[in-house]
Amino acid sequence: MVAPLKLGIAGLGTVGAELFRLIARQDKALAARCGRSVRVVAVTARSKAKKRGIDLRGVSWAKSPLALATDPEVDCFVELIGGADEPALSAIEAALGLGKSVVTANKALIAKHGLRLAALAEQHGGALNYEAAVGAAIPVIKTLREGLAGTEINRIYGILNGTCNYILTRMEQEGLSFDACLKDAQRLGYAEANPSFDVDGHDTAQKLSILASLAFGTKVAQNAVYVEGISSIAPEDLAAADELGYRVKLLGVAVRTKTGIEQRVHPTMVPRSSSIAQVMGVTNAVTIDGDGLTPITLVGPGAGAEATASAVIADIADVARGIRALPFGRPVAKLGTTRKAPMERHEGGYYIRLMARDLTGTAATIATRLAEQGISIESIVQRHPNGNRDAAGAAKKSSPVPVILITYATTEDAVRRALAAVQRDKVISGRPQVIRIEKN
Amino acid sequence: MVAPLKLGIAGLGTVGAELFRLIARQDKALAARCGRSVRVVAVTARSKAKKRGIDLRGVSWAKSPLALATDPEVDCFVELIGGADEPALSAIEAALGLGKSVVTANKALIAKHGLRLAALAEQHGGALNYEAAVGAAIPVIKTLREGLAGTEINRIYGILNGTCNYILTRMEQEGLSFDACLKDAQRLGYAEANPSFDVDGHDTAQKLSILASLAFGTKVAQNAVYVEGISSIAPEDLAAADELGYRVKLLGVAVRTKTGIEQRVHPTMVPRSSSIAQVMGVTNAVTIDGDGLTPITLVGPGAGAEATASAVIADIADVARGIRALPFGRPVAKLGTTRKAPMERHEGGYYIRLMARDLTGTAATIATRLAEQGISIESIVQRHPNGNRDAAGAAKKSSPVPVILITYATTEDAVRRALAAVQRDKVISGRPQVIRIEKN
Repeated sequence: MVAPLKLGIAGLGTVGAELFRLIARQDKALAARCGRSVRVVAVTARSKAKKRGIDLRGVSWAKSPLALATDPEVDCFVELIGGADEPALSAIEAALGLGKSVVTANKALIAKHGLRLAALAEQHGGALNYEAAVGAAIPVIKTLREGLAGTEINRIYGILNGTCNYILTRMEQEGLSFDACLKDAQRLGYAEANPSFDVDGHDTAQKLSILASLAFGTKVAQNAVYVEGISSIAPEDLAAADELGYRVKLLGVAVRTKTGIEQRVHPTMVPRSSSIAQVMGVTNAVTIDGDGLTPITLVGPGAGAEATASAVIADIADVARGIRALPFGRPVAKLGTTRKAPMERHEGGYYIRLMARDLTGTAATIATRLAEQGISIESIVQRHPNGNRDAAGAAKKSSPVPVILITYATTEDAVRRALAAVQRDKVISGRPQVIRIEKN
Repeated sequence: MVAPLKLGIAGLGTVGAELFRLIARQDKALAARCGRSVRVVAVTARSKAKKRGIDLRGVSWAKSPLALATDPEVDCFVELIGGADEPALSAIEAALGLGKSVVTANKALIAKHGLRLAALAEQHGGALNYEAAVGAAIPVIKTLREGLAGTEINRIYGILNGTCNYILTRMEQEGLSFDACLKDAQRLGYAEANPSFDVDGHDTAQKLSILASLAFGTKVAQNAVYVEGISSIAPEDLAAADELGYRVKLLGVAVRTKTGIEQRVHPTMVPRSSSIAQVMGVTNAVTIDGDGLTPITLVGPGAGAEATASAVIADIADVARGIRALPFGRPVAKLGTTRKAPMERHEGGYYIRLMARDLTGTAATIATRLAEQGISIESIVQRHPNGNRDAAGAAKKSSPVPVILITYATTEDAVRRALAAVQRDKVISGRPQVIRIEKN
């Protein structure tokens, strides 16, 4: 009989408590699957007194994450504290330095310190598993790290933030404003009191940088990600997208291009028939485009205590079974440097919404400015909201009229120049809305 | 430096030849990912003379699969011959008996002999990997075997046969008949000259039995699968499904029920908004419903030389890295016996299409017969095709009129009894069409 795997859990918030319950409930199935039992021997959290609805009898309480990580009784250190730095970092380093395995759900820490920690894990022989850090229960880390070993990946993109997808879904389905949906998301606990990290795209960028490293065999480069959030998206954009056969999603996209690896997070128009367009509410999804392969899409819950605990337990089971995959799929020393593809060189189609001051003259001006930059227009929609025309059908001069354009593939640079020229021409009011299109 | 992993490949059809090319092309990336290089040292196939467009210089040619499997130069035996029995079976047994690892894409063999082979692999320490056997490049075997170790799975269902999904997609999108689409599928190489194995659901059943074993920790029980094919599906059914908010897919479904494990393959109405409903053409998809979790759906290419070779190479990489997962996720001795849930006890909603001889009397009769079995009707659509009414709008007595019903959840048994009674009443012409509904 193999000795049980002894766990130390640091952090007993909703995920930690759920993990504790899940291990108790899945006790026998886990032992059958792993060939040995899995036992929580020690825990730590900020408050010992807090009620959590879990039975901690027989489990020792460590005085700090570091004490837990270095406790000789603990074989595998499970970090559910969160935060890119201390106290999680030192505790993980200590555990890995002792040759122990570490399981973490901490995307911020992996994005920032993952390479150094992976090198430590390699050196001392422990595992560093972090399935829950991206897409929670969706097995995307395992798929990239182990499952697609023979596939050259050209592009990976996904809906990696449930808060943003919840907001965009509500806006689309109910015609509500961004602000109204954000308030609802906060009320329902899907968004933080300070929502910037989610809605401005930074959470997605951290996750994307981890996926890009695994997909392309390059070093995690969080600072190389171009980031735009969703707060500028208006109900009009979602209605126009619908009319044109698209949906708007906040995507994280990493693509291999001639100039390097392009990593970007921004609201994106995706064809309504694509797998990714069907993903609604807090659900996450990742699509992987391989060399000569039809894309693979993985869809599932990207957050929540149960989904996160489920991914953590899968990582723990791999440790128990003795599966030791390299943290980033290949030795850290063999990871390439990420050559950042400049965003100005990005190529693709664009959705552009402008508020024309006077439709007749403006359409001609816009068309000319786009043509000067070699941009071809795939379709153009001129909207006449109620009240913009008088009884005889003539446009009222005073109120701006929305003009919506879809371009054929062009470059970011060309679009920026053309729109700057249109703004200088003073034929539009306000800032142009620009949403990139991603074809499947 | 670790010694290279030496492969013997049996079978050089389109998949074998593609695998050979892929290993050559991914040479360096594979070595980086596995920590050792992967080399094809020997091969075998029916004809040595056949042109395959691959360079076999420096690779020895074995006189039979068995000779290849037992060649002391071969560490890992890759079986791409196909067929549930010989010559693949003896060669795999021999390789496993020698403690070698085996990678196969052979669903028929795994469904029929997988348990015995898994026991051999456990006994002698080799791996038995078969990711390509179900859903080709979709990492569903790895996800079930390793990735969801802590999740109690309640249901798994999927589109597991690209031929059927291609036919149903064409029928739906173009209003064509089953026969016309089958002929096209044959012309394009998506369907065999003898299409029965695919279109009658047997291919799906083999794959489902493997997934069910992994999902529920039970022995593979191919004979416990209830099987219905798609040849009875008419364009009218697809049009009615569309009108009612559904699509028709050939699903393999395995569910844990009170009476045991229900395994069934049949045309199924799925809500048009579900992830699985978006899967078109030859693409495959699998949805996994876990305890308290939002379902996880994996979508991707389910067939084709590149997709299959990609899965095979991922399995080979795991062997090279020394990852040894139990073939069915837990020891064969601990797999439960599959208690077959009888199909008569199946519970769910039903779509029923009847050809009423005379609408007025028939609707009342049908409603009575359903009510007698305690079946509630969710919706009813009476169709009046052109020509069934005269100029004044009265139905012509002679031509039958389609009546389409959607029931609330009921049992298979109740539906069968009710429809038998309706047939005895002689108010309908022909056999009723029945399609089960699967909610997401």
